[in-house]
Amino acid sequence: MPDSNVPPFHGNISFNAQHSPMGAFMSFTCGQFGTCGGFGLQIGKPGNQDLYIGVKEGDRFSDAPLKCLPFFQGATPSGADAFLVEQAGPAEQNVRPKVVPYRAEQIRRRYGWATDRWETDDFEFAVYTPFGSISDPTTHAPVVSGSELIPGVTATLMVDNRHGAGTRTLVFAIKPDTPGYRPLELGAALPAFAWRRQWGIAATSSGGQRDPFHFCRFSVDDGLRQEMTHQLGAVPGVAVEALPGERVELRISLGCFLEDLVTTRLEGRYFYTRFFHGLQDVLLELQRSFPGRRTMSHRLDDELMNSGLSPDQQFLIAHATRSYYGSTQLLDVAGQPFWVVNEGEYCMMNTLDLSVDQMFWELKHNPWVVRNVLDNFVRYYSYHDEVKLKDEETEKRRDAVKHSHCISSSLRLSASPGGISFCHDMGAHNNFSPFGHSSYELADLTGCFSYMTAEQLCNWSLMAATYVNRTDDLDWARQNVHVITACLSSLVNRGGDFGFVQFDSSRCGGGSEITTYDSLDHSLAQTRNNVYMAVKSWASYLGLAMVLEKLRRDEAATAREQLTRIERVLAEHVGVDGVFPAVFEEDNPGYGSRILPAVEGLMYPHAWGVPLPQTLVKDLKEHALTLLRDPQQRNLFPDGGIRLSSTSDNSWMSKIAIFQHLARRVLRLDDDPKISQLLAKADAAHVKWQTDGSGYWACSDQFVNGIAKGSRYYPRIITTALWME
Amino acid sequence: MPDSNVPPFHGNISFNAQHSPMGAFMSFTCGQFGTCGGFGLQIGKPGNQDLYIGVKEGDRFSDAPLKCLPFFQGATPSGADAFLVEQAGPAEQNVRPKVVPYRAEQIRRRYGWATDRWETDDFEFAVYTPFGSISDPTTHAPVVSGSELIPGVTATLMVDNRHGAGTRTLVFAIKPDTPGYRPLELGAALPAFAWRRQWGIAATSSGGQRDPFHFCRFSVDDGLRQEMTHQLGAVPGVAVEALPGERVELRISLGCFLEDLVTTRLEGRYFYTRFFHGLQDVLLELQRSFPGRRTMSHRLDDELMNSGLSPDQQFLIAHATRSYYGSTQLLDVAGQPFWVVNEGEYCMMNTLDLSVDQMFWELKHNPWVVRNVLDNFVRYYSYHDEVKLKDEETEKRRDAVKHSHCISSSLRLSASPGGISFCHDMGAHNNFSPFGHSSYELADLTGCFSYMTAEQLCNWSLMAATYVNRTDDLDWARQNVHVITACLSSLVNRGGDFGFVQFDSSRCGGGSEITTYDSLDHSLAQTRNNVYMAVKSWASYLGLAMVLEKLRRDEAATAREQLTRIERVLAEHVGVDGVFPAVFEEDNPGYGSRILPAVEGLMYPHAWGVPLPQTLVKDLKEHALTLLRDPQQRNLFPDGGIRLSSTSDNSWMSKIAIFQHLARRVLRLDDDPKISQLLAKADAAHVKWQTDGSGYWACSDQFVNGIAKGSRYYPRIITTALWME
Repeated sequence: MPDSNVPPFHGNISFNAQHSPMGAFMSFTCGQFGTCGGFGLQIGKPGNQDLYIGVKEGDRFSDAPLKCLPFFQGATPSGADAFLVEQAGPAEQNVRPKVVPYRAEQIRRRYGWATDRWETDDFEFAVYTPFGSISDPTTHAPVVSGSELIPGVTATLMVDNRHGAGTRTLVFAIKPDTPGYRPLELGAALPAFAWRRQWGIAATSSGGQRDPFHFCRFSVDDGLRQEMTHQLGAVPGVAVEALPGERVELRISLGCFLEDLVTTRLEGRYFYTRFFHGLQDVLLELQRSFPGRRTMSHRLDDELMNSGLSPDQQFLIAHATRSYYGSTQLLDVAGQPFWVVNEGEYCMMNTLDLSVDQMFWELKHNPWVVRNVLDNFVRYYSYHDEVKLKDEETEKRRDAVKHSHCISSSLRLSASPGGISFCHDMGAHNNFSPFGHSSYELADLTGCFSYMTAEQLCNWSLMAATYVNRTDDLDWARQNVHVITACLSSLVNRGGDFGFVQFDSSRCGGGSEITTYDSLDHSLAQTRNNVYMAVKSWASYLGLAMVLEKLRRDEAATAREQLTRIERVLAEHVGVDGVFPAVFEEDNPGYGSRILPAVEGLMYPHAWGVPLPQTLVKDLKEHALTLLRDPQQRNLFPDGGIRLSSTSDNSWMSKIAIFQHLARRVLRLDDDPKISQLLAKADAAHVKWQTDGSGYWACSDQFVNGIAKGSRYYPRIITTALWME
Repeated sequence: MPDSNVPPFHGNISFNAQHSPMGAFMSFTCGQFGTCGGFGLQIGKPGNQDLYIGVKEGDRFSDAPLKCLPFFQGATPSGADAFLVEQAGPAEQNVRPKVVPYRAEQIRRRYGWATDRWETDDFEFAVYTPFGSISDPTTHAPVVSGSELIPGVTATLMVDNRHGAGTRTLVFAIKPDTPGYRPLELGAALPAFAWRRQWGIAATSSGGQRDPFHFCRFSVDDGLRQEMTHQLGAVPGVAVEALPGERVELRISLGCFLEDLVTTRLEGRYFYTRFFHGLQDVLLELQRSFPGRRTMSHRLDDELMNSGLSPDQQFLIAHATRSYYGSTQLLDVAGQPFWVVNEGEYCMMNTLDLSVDQMFWELKHNPWVVRNVLDNFVRYYSYHDEVKLKDEETEKRRDAVKHSHCISSSLRLSASPGGISFCHDMGAHNNFSPFGHSSYELADLTGCFSYMTAEQLCNWSLMAATYVNRTDDLDWARQNVHVITACLSSLVNRGGDFGFVQFDSSRCGGGSEITTYDSLDHSLAQTRNNVYMAVKSWASYLGLAMVLEKLRRDEAATAREQLTRIERVLAEHVGVDGVFPAVFEEDNPGYGSRILPAVEGLMYPHAWGVPLPQTLVKDLKEHALTLLRDPQQRNLFPDGGIRLSSTSDNSWMSKIAIFQHLARRVLRLDDDPKISQLLAKADAAHVKWQTDGSGYWACSDQFVNGIAKGSRYYPRIITTALWME
């Protein structure tokens, strides 16, 4: 069966990709030359295993070197060294592995939406990561969810020896960084092995006479030549010989299985454990579903290829999709599904300011996971606070706090009623944090790690509104009307005269709230009087109004009033140059910053399909156009990449993608061919950020001058998929 | 309560020690300066955590530097860096940790049998590792085993501030190498935290007014000064303030809890899970049992101090005891106890040639674990083979094998009946190997990784005989008489005319058997015609004869005949210089080697308390004396350490200890003051091998010229405890 026609990737092909199933918090990562990868379970980074994927001239015993894709580190000392002290020892320990990596120019890579395919003149290797809907486990039969939640991926290794004169041997081997190899007995023509109780590999072959086999010695080439496996060996693998005249395919299952409780406080295990009996079961099921998974992958490849998007855009979407799924984790907590997206390298669980961006993708594929996240935030990670009224008073009390060493956040600092809000996240690294508290937020700070009370309140409200808008799940809305009205009150209490965030949460102690742009500069750090938060608050009121109107609740009128109030304030803050200051406080360093995320809040009403207020849209369009047309190019990097804040070298890919989407589809800025060109040039720069600036870290979000410096291995770039609307 | 009077250690105090409970395969390792340690679960090496154990002048908020024991690596980048891209961020991230390590000369270390105690002018730190019997779970009430099997150790940190002018703060903190910190809620005056589902720390304090507290930020000193813990923090810890006039002790529980299946094939969980409900339970129980554990530790310290052994000998015993327990693992397999000793850094499970040496210790403390190992070898890891008759024929067939690529070990290579034997081990790294096969042994080799069929047959026989001799458990002997007689037949079949190993197992394919001394030179590598194996075979026959006589079985006579036969052959091989050649084959390179382990087999009849044949003892005594008195000192290293084989720079501490024991207590070689001096000088050299040659690896077995080059972090050196007889 021929593979789909994804064209060879046009950029630098030496970059890692996360090959991941849905909801297993597992990646099989490979792609960057000369570094390790392989299986990474429940970690926010690539695994640490050398991969030997290639072909050898001759049968398994031949002395020819093994020619491999360059997915391994340079020469490393043999694991056998540990056993050898003085004597020469058996021959197998003294052999230098004869492995020759292909050079970059000898390799083509075709990077489709669900197929990552490597071609050399000798063989082809492909990894398939089909994705789609995960059925709602609370309403569907378990068997449906089983095939969707299988914790593994499949790969093929193919050699076309139809015109060959001699036998050739296909090899797939892996060298774990810590010992734990064990053989698995799955059947005669089904060689298989595992690493402890964690992950395993099984293979079948098609098209040839020879059975595939499994090996394990201290080096990959010695393993091939030794029929007996060694349990102390360092490099297990699967292989098959292709005789002259044969076109042989090795079909490889790459699966994991963590059967036990994996999280703390809220103790959960993987939801897939409801459908599979163990690692063997997973590996066998991956083999059984091989053709279906490949077909599905090709269909997805075709869908992206036929999207009409540019190759750069297609790459960014394909890359982001893999990264998103690598961070997903569907837990079974007390018999109920519990959806978690881990925050890339940080592994924070369901960071709410990521959830709100990822919901567009999720509402398309599995709306129930959005509901799940909303419910779990209410149940476990909501809180009520007060707001701080005056900075002067706060300062005074902060000094008092310092001297008494009391816990400052429990003090009332000239407070007035605040209301409900939601935590930044639900924990980190599989540890759920104490209920009502995130793993991230701390008191007494003014930057990174401070509270995001107002922003997270907006995020929950916007997610709830978007969920109801897309699903029309009025039962859920009715069930949660007390939360929705509480959100409205809380927003109002924080908004003061202007309608949008004017006060900081009492949880901040002596500090002040920040936005999701925690590591950007002053332009987006402060929540109060920020244009980004103003437009986002406006959208939140609109969303709450819509839901409340559907429920025929009087409170909708309040939301509408606030809406109008913010529109009025925004209109007053348009600068003479048509630009909104980032922060509406003339003495604030952010006053002079020019930020593209000012328009971000338009994303929600656009998603809801409601008409937008003309003045606001006109002003924001003018703002964005002015920034993009700036002769000084303050919102661009020298390579053409987009700079979110004119005053920061730090830019975030996921947020750029939202801006680009709004610029193209809502504000129609690309009606101007120059802007269209500028956005296309930006796409090309962003591709390079990922392949060159984040080659090891697969898909990353935060780039400083094109280099991934934070938020690496990240899920949120899935916002690029908005472009496929 | 004053601590016991273990004198300050007289050697280099910068060495790691494994602080381990019994049967939990857990170590809390610390002691070497400038390297990491801390918790290591189920690994054959130290953990990878920086430890900050010390005191600060002033209260927790003071700006004084933290003065710590030097149990951490030099400056490492802060975990907060990952969050920071461009901006300055909160103050806590920019502080360089103010930690000052004590210098070696400012520290005293008292290294008792169960107390490892560090003293500075400012504070004291001690870790307690009491040990004793583990009650037989198949015959005793569970509650008995619970306290014996608690998976953790306790430590104290004490500051005497009775004459101090200001407050001082005691600190115990740990920096894991991978994230996973979480707070535990155990009670107000019981601060506690954990790392994922794996391990945790809790503390109480006594003697002061202030409650102990728990902290966690990106650095230890920032954590101390911040009242709110940060779940994303990198360095959690516990601490307490001591006011002027107070003598305050922080009592620290260091516990682990792995609740799930941890092994494969034979799926087992830790036996301690039957007695504890979780990590919290373990930490609380450690606190409750604090006084008892300290008293028990002091009793053990005293016992070793009053043993009459030299300080060097006492050190080696104390060091070995800790290392042994760090490798022990009591599993619950299908409701039944399953005892495993892991082989140090290699993590092979129940390596039988270690079990036979460790049994002397185990028979003293928990005889049932020896029975458990014997039974499990019979049930899962015994096999039947044939023996190969002629080398010439073998060579021919080996060539044929190479060409046909068949699995050679399944071929019959000019074979005659062999019989029962036992695998080298039961698996590795928590993976039980396929039944009837070890993880170690391979066919077609002549050195390391070849089969140890004959040696393991002797080992099982000797363990069975010693178990019956010590326990008089005739029920067990009767139950296993078919195995015991099978062992006798198998020994006879391998012994040919000489009575001891003349043939290799058919499992070797084209290779030949080796002994436990797998990485030594030719002197001890080959099993056939080896003097070490001859004496060991002799002891095996004697042991089997004794058991069979107790059971009134006629086969005892055969064993006695073989015994006499070997004695005769041995007598014929005494050289003109009074030295046995290592290998009785004149053309063998081992013929000229002089090996001290020739006498090792005397250990068993000595242990059984039976009279020894005078000629054999006389010859072996002459052999040993000649080697020790050798003017060329071929069996000594330049530092005075003992060289097991005159032709190898590789020497094994565990085996040296057995030799020394026999030399002193059985052969009475130290009646000669020069030999007595020589053995004492060797003890001093061996202490240095451990402290200087194995400083990171705690207690190791294999030393090449005094440097630990293999078999590190090893359990078998517990043979030093024989000296306490």
